[in-house]
Amino acid sequence: MNEPIFSYAHLSRFAHDVFLKIGCSEEHAAVAVESLLRADLRGIDSHGVARLSGYVRLWEAKRVNSKPNIRIVHETPSTAVVDGDSGLGLVVAPHAMQIAIAKARQAGTGWVAVKNSNHFGIAGHHAMMALPHDMIGMAMTNASPLVAPTFSIERLLGTNPIAIAIPAHTQPPFVADFATTTAANGKLEILQRQEKKAPLGWIQKKDGAPSSNPNELKDGGALIPLGSDREHGSHKGFCLGAWVDIFSAVLSGANYGPWVPPFVSFLAPPANPVGEGIGHFFGALRVDAFRPADEFKKHMDNWITRFRSAKTIAGEEKLIIPGDPEREFETTRMKTGISLNAKVASDLKVLGNKFGLSF
Amino acid sequence: MNEPIFSYAHLSRFAHDVFLKIGCSEEHAAVAVESLLRADLRGIDSHGVARLSGYVRLWEAKRVNSKPNIRIVHETPSTAVVDGDSGLGLVVAPHAMQIAIAKARQAGTGWVAVKNSNHFGIAGHHAMMALPHDMIGMAMTNASPLVAPTFSIERLLGTNPIAIAIPAHTQPPFVADFATTTAANGKLEILQRQEKKAPLGWIQKKDGAPSSNPNELKDGGALIPLGSDREHGSHKGFCLGAWVDIFSAVLSGANYGPWVPPFVSFLAPPANPVGEGIGHFFGALRVDAFRPADEFKKHMDNWITRFRSAKTIAGEEKLIIPGDPEREFETTRMKTGISLNAKVASDLKVLGNKFGLSF
Repeated sequence: MNEPIFSYAHLSRFAHDVFLKIGCSEEHAAVAVESLLRADLRGIDSHGVARLSGYVRLWEAKRVNSKPNIRIVHETPSTAVVDGDSGLGLVVAPHAMQIAIAKARQAGTGWVAVKNSNHFGIAGHHAMMALPHDMIGMAMTNASPLVAPTFSIERLLGTNPIAIAIPAHTQPPFVADFATTTAANGKLEILQRQEKKAPLGWIQKKDGAPSSNPNELKDGGALIPLGSDREHGSHKGFCLGAWVDIFSAVLSGANYGPWVPPFVSFLAPPANPVGEGIGHFFGALRVDAFRPADEFKKHMDNWITRFRSAKTIAGEEKLIIPGDPEREFETTRMKTGISLNAKVASDLKVLGNKFGLSF
Repeated sequence: MNEPIFSYAHLSRFAHDVFLKIGCSEEHAAVAVESLLRADLRGIDSHGVARLSGYVRLWEAKRVNSKPNIRIVHETPSTAVVDGDSGLGLVVAPHAMQIAIAKARQAGTGWVAVKNSNHFGIAGHHAMMALPHDMIGMAMTNASPLVAPTFSIERLLGTNPIAIAIPAHTQPPFVADFATTTAANGKLEILQRQEKKAPLGWIQKKDGAPSSNPNELKDGGALIPLGSDREHGSHKGFCLGAWVDIFSAVLSGANYGPWVPPFVSFLAPPANPVGEGIGHFFGALRVDAFRPADEFKKHMDNWITRFRSAKTIAGEEKLIIPGDPEREFETTRMKTGISLNAKVASDLKVLGNKFGLSF
């Protein structure tokens, strides 16, 4: 596949201009671009500029407020609830994570639940904001219901990702960032484009029967919680998705479960909301609230080194430490540019034309 | 199977007497019994009185200190590190959870990492301690290495469980408590007793090939992280197990990864420890540090009711809310008694004889 390649500078300038065109302030545009582009840099192509026109459509549908007044509505020494005022999640999330970091500085840890927000890009980006402060970062979000819990044929949860970023000393940080389903929706989109089948255990039909059709969700099917089936622990994946949903939305006052508004602008949000917008949850833990930071980080080096050098199954070179593949992507793409799917590139060209911007 | 049945009162009196015989104070014995028996009540038979003689053997091997001086060695407003002084995890864990609850009362949340402890029974028991205070409780622990991360043939992690207990209003609480592997080790023990095969995806042979032999671990095999294989997300299960290990042990100063001492007394702990004992991590979040407790709990009722009434796959009566099966067990067994495997019952009889106690 000969995909067009764009520099980070080019893509970020274009995205910045688009955010300005929909009314974002310079400051918010810069924050949004950093959140958005981090996905492209880290190889999570489904969550980067490929979604830019989707965000614009949500703004056109008046579901995204480009001039949000993001504010704390309740707080204690180690917690806060933030009202995102329908802002872009790409802006609201870093704002909330900064509050978590500031709380952690004072109280040892900081935990921020967010309501009235929108999709926030990749969870890992927000969690990683804690790293330069010698803190552990956590980020999670609920999302449009696409997942049927174990035994259900109804879609009641989103792919509800969890990210955890943990600093090390000379080793790169441990950065886990994963959907609580067997496979993220972005993986299905790739199979759809390639017209390939999905492995069994990723998707079920509308009656709950196994399916390998990556288009099954259009026909009433559903994604499946991590574990694939009851015998292999899908009830545990359901626990994880439920945990993310409750912390992100029931704690904050956002919509939860089947009430979470759809990401796509052509589907209307549920008529009887149980909260405001979608919800996120962030955590920051100061490492030296537990033990001296240097001591902790040297033990993390030891942890990472020991695991990375594990004896592997024949044919596998090494055990992969969470965050390794994304970091390699980030280094390479920052240097050599970001390849975009041809459809995504032409979609961005159309978006540019709309605003008189050349892509 | 005609298993002997014992009342809660009988088993708890016996366990209490055993703990006194090994030198526990009255107070510690009472706390240990409550932790231990909660597993039997909730139907997690592998973690209850079936382990009592194992704890005694660890005491005989001088790896359990029955008179621990459990103390805070470092703290901030929302965090603490506790040194368990080699005490029974059954005693150390509730002590640490009380500290988390007290911290949450002041700071909104409380987070306690524990080093120098031993196995703590079921994680769910400790997490549930938060519920009467209108708090969310979390508990996790690392454990003896039995699990090979994705692509590894070495056992580097324990089954590292996570428990999350969330209060509701008129509905019973949401209580998730699960090993971060496809199947917990207790499930293998049951299959071993029944001489049955395990499903593929639970266990691998020492070279990493799939196995259905529940005795495979005796031959160098390993349990597998939740997800079963790379294609079905076992790298996510690895992330979860790693998270538990790092929070429980690298934050606290306990042993982590392959250095965690084995539960069985006949295997010596690693000669080059990287910390002290095994580690746990606890959290308590005051619900009203986020929104009024009544409001939160009524939304939890709505969440639970909506999920429980989901349309199900043909043949399945209803979606199971985490904690439902264990609560039903607890209600029944408190009334009608606890059935024990015949081998466990005779093992307890032998244990009683050793101490001059009748079982």
